[in-house]
Amino acid sequence: MVLERLKQLAGQVTNVVSPPHPLDPLSSLEIENATSLLRKEKGQLYYNAVSLLEPPKAQMLPWLTDPEHNQRPARTADIVAITPDGNVMDGHISLSENKILKWEHTPNVQPLITMEDLQIVEHVVRKDPKVIEQCGILGIPPEDMNKVYCDPWTIGFDERFGNSVRLQQALMYYRPHVDNSQYTYPLDFCPIYDSNKQAIVHIDVPKVRRPLSKAPPNDYTVKSIEETIGYRTDLKPINITQPEGVSFTVKGRTIEWQNWSVHIGFNYREGIVLNNITYFDKAENAVRPIFYRLSLAEMVVPYGNPERPHHRKHAFDLGEYGGGYMTNSLSVGCDCKGSIHYMDAEFVNRAGAAQVIKNAICVHEEDAGILFKHTDFRDDSVVVTRGRKLIISHIFTAANYEYCVYWIFHQDGTVQLEIKLTGILNTYSMNPGEDTNGWGTEVYPGVNAHNHQHLFCLRIDPNIDGPNNTIIQVDAAQGPGEVGSEENYYGNAFYAKKTRFTNPVEAMSDYDGSTSRTWEMCNENKLNPYSRKPVSYKLVSREVPALLPKKGSLVWKRAGFARHAVHVTKYSDDQLYPAGRHVPQTSGEPSQGLPQWIEANTTENIANTDVVLWHTFGITHFPSPEDFPVMPAEPMTLLLRPRNFFVRNPCLDVPPSYARTPAEVAAGSSGCAHGKDNTSKTV
Amino acid sequence: MVLERLKQLAGQVTNVVSPPHPLDPLSSLEIENATSLLRKEKGQLYYNAVSLLEPPKAQMLPWLTDPEHNQRPARTADIVAITPDGNVMDGHISLSENKILKWEHTPNVQPLITMEDLQIVEHVVRKDPKVIEQCGILGIPPEDMNKVYCDPWTIGFDERFGNSVRLQQALMYYRPHVDNSQYTYPLDFCPIYDSNKQAIVHIDVPKVRRPLSKAPPNDYTVKSIEETIGYRTDLKPINITQPEGVSFTVKGRTIEWQNWSVHIGFNYREGIVLNNITYFDKAENAVRPIFYRLSLAEMVVPYGNPERPHHRKHAFDLGEYGGGYMTNSLSVGCDCKGSIHYMDAEFVNRAGAAQVIKNAICVHEEDAGILFKHTDFRDDSVVVTRGRKLIISHIFTAANYEYCVYWIFHQDGTVQLEIKLTGILNTYSMNPGEDTNGWGTEVYPGVNAHNHQHLFCLRIDPNIDGPNNTIIQVDAAQGPGEVGSEENYYGNAFYAKKTRFTNPVEAMSDYDGSTSRTWEMCNENKLNPYSRKPVSYKLVSREVPALLPKKGSLVWKRAGFARHAVHVTKYSDDQLYPAGRHVPQTSGEPSQGLPQWIEANTTENIANTDVVLWHTFGITHFPSPEDFPVMPAEPMTLLLRPRNFFVRNPCLDVPPSYARTPAEVAAGSSGCAHGKDNTSKTV
Repeated sequence: MVLERLKQLAGQVTNVVSPPHPLDPLSSLEIENATSLLRKEKGQLYYNAVSLLEPPKAQMLPWLTDPEHNQRPARTADIVAITPDGNVMDGHISLSENKILKWEHTPNVQPLITMEDLQIVEHVVRKDPKVIEQCGILGIPPEDMNKVYCDPWTIGFDERFGNSVRLQQALMYYRPHVDNSQYTYPLDFCPIYDSNKQAIVHIDVPKVRRPLSKAPPNDYTVKSIEETIGYRTDLKPINITQPEGVSFTVKGRTIEWQNWSVHIGFNYREGIVLNNITYFDKAENAVRPIFYRLSLAEMVVPYGNPERPHHRKHAFDLGEYGGGYMTNSLSVGCDCKGSIHYMDAEFVNRAGAAQVIKNAICVHEEDAGILFKHTDFRDDSVVVTRGRKLIISHIFTAANYEYCVYWIFHQDGTVQLEIKLTGILNTYSMNPGEDTNGWGTEVYPGVNAHNHQHLFCLRIDPNIDGPNNTIIQVDAAQGPGEVGSEENYYGNAFYAKKTRFTNPVEAMSDYDGSTSRTWEMCNENKLNPYSRKPVSYKLVSREVPALLPKKGSLVWKRAGFARHAVHVTKYSDDQLYPAGRHVPQTSGEPSQGLPQWIEANTTENIANTDVVLWHTFGITHFPSPEDFPVMPAEPMTLLLRPRNFFVRNPCLDVPPSYARTPAEVAAGSSGCAHGKDNTSKTV
Repeated sequence: MVLERLKQLAGQVTNVVSPPHPLDPLSSLEIENATSLLRKEKGQLYYNAVSLLEPPKAQMLPWLTDPEHNQRPARTADIVAITPDGNVMDGHISLSENKILKWEHTPNVQPLITMEDLQIVEHVVRKDPKVIEQCGILGIPPEDMNKVYCDPWTIGFDERFGNSVRLQQALMYYRPHVDNSQYTYPLDFCPIYDSNKQAIVHIDVPKVRRPLSKAPPNDYTVKSIEETIGYRTDLKPINITQPEGVSFTVKGRTIEWQNWSVHIGFNYREGIVLNNITYFDKAENAVRPIFYRLSLAEMVVPYGNPERPHHRKHAFDLGEYGGGYMTNSLSVGCDCKGSIHYMDAEFVNRAGAAQVIKNAICVHEEDAGILFKHTDFRDDSVVVTRGRKLIISHIFTAANYEYCVYWIFHQDGTVQLEIKLTGILNTYSMNPGEDTNGWGTEVYPGVNAHNHQHLFCLRIDPNIDGPNNTIIQVDAAQGPGEVGSEENYYGNAFYAKKTRFTNPVEAMSDYDGSTSRTWEMCNENKLNPYSRKPVSYKLVSREVPALLPKKGSLVWKRAGFARHAVHVTKYSDDQLYPAGRHVPQTSGEPSQGLPQWIEANTTENIANTDVVLWHTFGITHFPSPEDFPVMPAEPMTLLLRPRNFFVRNPCLDVPPSYARTPAEVAAGSSGCAHGKDNTSKTV
């Protein structure tokens, strides 16, 4: 039986013989090795997470520099499990030595809600007499309880219950038919579920009741569209093909493309993790490190309705549910178009077995429009070169919302993070004629979609020509001297005002749109030979709303990372999660994660040393009817751009679509078009 | 002879028999009809512009509503010409009646610099003894004057010369070989050219001299790349094809696509002008007007070096040179990929003849990634629908810089404006070891690229379900009540704070990134039936730096439109150009255009009436070596998004790539994939 399972698993993993890269996610085999050992030594456990404990950077850097001569960092599993009596256990297991390295009970914390935790609540809710009673009050008879649904969020934090018991809040809905969108029929009460007892322990019932909406369904199913407005018939196919294959190579989980090299990690929490990002610089004839690690480390979605219990709606989708756990299995020609390389994701389930999400990560190329162009107005001599981009993406579904995460590599050295928000608004019920009080929008009769923010925390571990980096805030600023003064007679002087961060307190910085504020991650030990400025990468991010919950509020306390657009900390192996390791039911007293780390050492030097930049960005969403019943994707993006890093445009060697010099124009010769696309045509 | 020319021209235009749309640009035939008449009645003239005088809106709206029964607005040519003795003439010519309607001398203005004006200066410069002398001082012998080049900008404004004489400043460069990039070898002096005298009338010579740089060339020609770093060979082709044709239809210059209809205008100045933008709303079974007119109306590029004469570097690329005049002839498979519909541009030349830029406008579709998606976590039932976009674009070359302008229409009702900046930095010379004083960056030995801003002015003439619209500023704001108060106990309240503009002075508003400030263009006379909020389109723009030249400075005075992110004015047919009709050599005393219009009527009502929103956006550019010798395209974007405009997501009827309902999952049936792309594949 065990042997069969091992064989079965071996078929699912790509590199069984060669050892994995030290930053590869745990394979199914490794996951089950860990749980086998624990089963033997610790008995029955409910597994919450079994994932790679990334090796210390001090071990990784030498190995990355010279894997032949330096010791390969060992494989360690990081475990979160719950004992049958509800104790949360944190552990480390050496996979090479098949040995428990650490096994500790952590009191008063709750690990994240897994997909299995999410699935179970609805079944309990439907059978609970008090829930049935509440449904009856709203007009749903007991025989229709199979039409009652819930999105069973973590409770967030509720001071009435604290964090010693594992709780979920069931956001309630109704579906007249199984294929109707439930978000059209929100119910007004909110049961609290105890996952140890597997029972409803409380119901929050509003003072003003809101009977079940009588509005007709508002659906996006094929049947509903065909029966009402019908599908558009005037959209002709666009085919994207790569007859000669793709331009990237895959070695294990390392992708090489257009001078870039990147290792693609993945975990249950952050989803995609990009490691050891380097660029081969032809001018230096050297592989230059840029980022040690990039990931979305946390996010929070505070809702803006102050009426109880809506204040509990502030999901930490990564720390409370896991962007990896919730990731979609992607399909070619639908989620991804063109020539696609997929990678799977492997996780533990509650019982300790491995499970695989096929096609969890999509790697593909896209045309990127014009890369650069210049025409000489004198003679129309020209160069025009088209760009290409490499996209590493995944999509995760957090109950109602979909987050599509695209890590995009450009030929000019830019790394772009694009996130598209789609899916469905979280909705609450309202009575006909009820006032939303400005805290939400009636997006359909009886449907109140509350104001909310999506605030993401991007963790950037820069490695700009080495780990010793400095973060400098850059503001566009007017020069000194009034109009008419000798130094600024015409008043046009402006410059890049630089603020160098030397400790984490002064690095807590907010966004300023009017100064086009950016933050440079630079290596002060290496100057660009021309500009004599430190080599750097610049964070260019323009969707940076302030955290709207007030200072001292529950969200402000729990989501400390979101208080500022940028925080900088000295690198530490164990500081990955800015709202803490176990996020559900944290009270925020004290704040976990970032605020705690910074408070512990406010004067620590962060200049010219190994640092991490934490960047919170996102959007504020005031819903409107066109977001419903399913929301057209709303994009947001940020860039990491080389500044003074290269001695010249690093993509001059991309073959031009067309180039013709002044001498060629004068001679009447035709120029060069060796990058031209000959399948395009005029119509 | 005339007959032959007419036949020749008739071949160049698409609709000779059917009358043109009243907003179609003037055809070559119409241009030459106008100049023929003027030649006959006014004698010799140097033509600066002969373009469509757009009909008054009061005539257009009835005709657009019912072209069968309302009078077709007449065709009128708007003329700018210079008499042989240097007088600037502004005129209107009725093309239907072949009659001069207006002919006036406008003193103390200078119309824009045409391509012909640009071409001529270099030849004069090379022969001028004083320029030859200056070149000699820098180390260029007289026999090398054929290697001396100049970018002959307008002078901007120089108080020593005023605006009665037409002047250009020659930014000087050297090319060791005709194919070398001149921007590697800037020269330190600046001749002033008088275009009436066709002579150099002054030379600005700096106190500190900077001999010609001895650095090797820094080129991007095919030869230079092949001889040095060589081209990349690992980029495989991506083919984009539409075997069944494109999804848009073209009727004259009106494009219909995915419920959108838009008329594509074009003029010498703004380039693309989009008129009469409507969306067929299935829910209302009605064509709904959205924008009467959209265009880039002006821009300014102030440079930040306060040393004379660099203060004169603040190009108004549209008003001083013309985005249409400078537009590129595009080529398929290079500038544009896929299935392309091109449109030509027709202009007058100096002598009064028509000339055609082939393929000036590109119209094409692109895949737009996921349009919307939702997965039910319970059973993986899913809908995923891919989006498409329609792109109407042109590219213009303003001496050193390239501006790629993309007007993008989305299926969800969003209009996006994307601008990519590429081309070459404007450069100035520096001595080895010289300090840039923070006003620029040494991007290559001897090359100082000055700090600058690119500030574009988008003119939005909204027509949100009719011309009577109101502009409302929207800020994300914390709710009232401190943490712990009854009204905001958990401190999480937030809402959309709305500021309704009633006159042009209170509408002068700046950007605030921290509040995610947007501006709604709404029709208060029509409420969304669900949200009960006015139907609106929202301007979402995040690249909105403040104008850095100081209040009262030369740029601040000349570029009044750039003082604020948003200005709103009551609609007036003659208010198209926010820095004035004739921009070169304006002193800014008084400020032309927007400030003048607003000052003339500060209390004019702008609420619930026909209004224009002027939006200034752009970037601040601190150059770095990777921008040189040709700059990788830097994108910036803004969105015009429907809010409370539709009763639901208007693109639910786009065929899904894949859709499967909970009932289908339960029944084991396979779902629907009629929008799936079957040419994509896994690799």
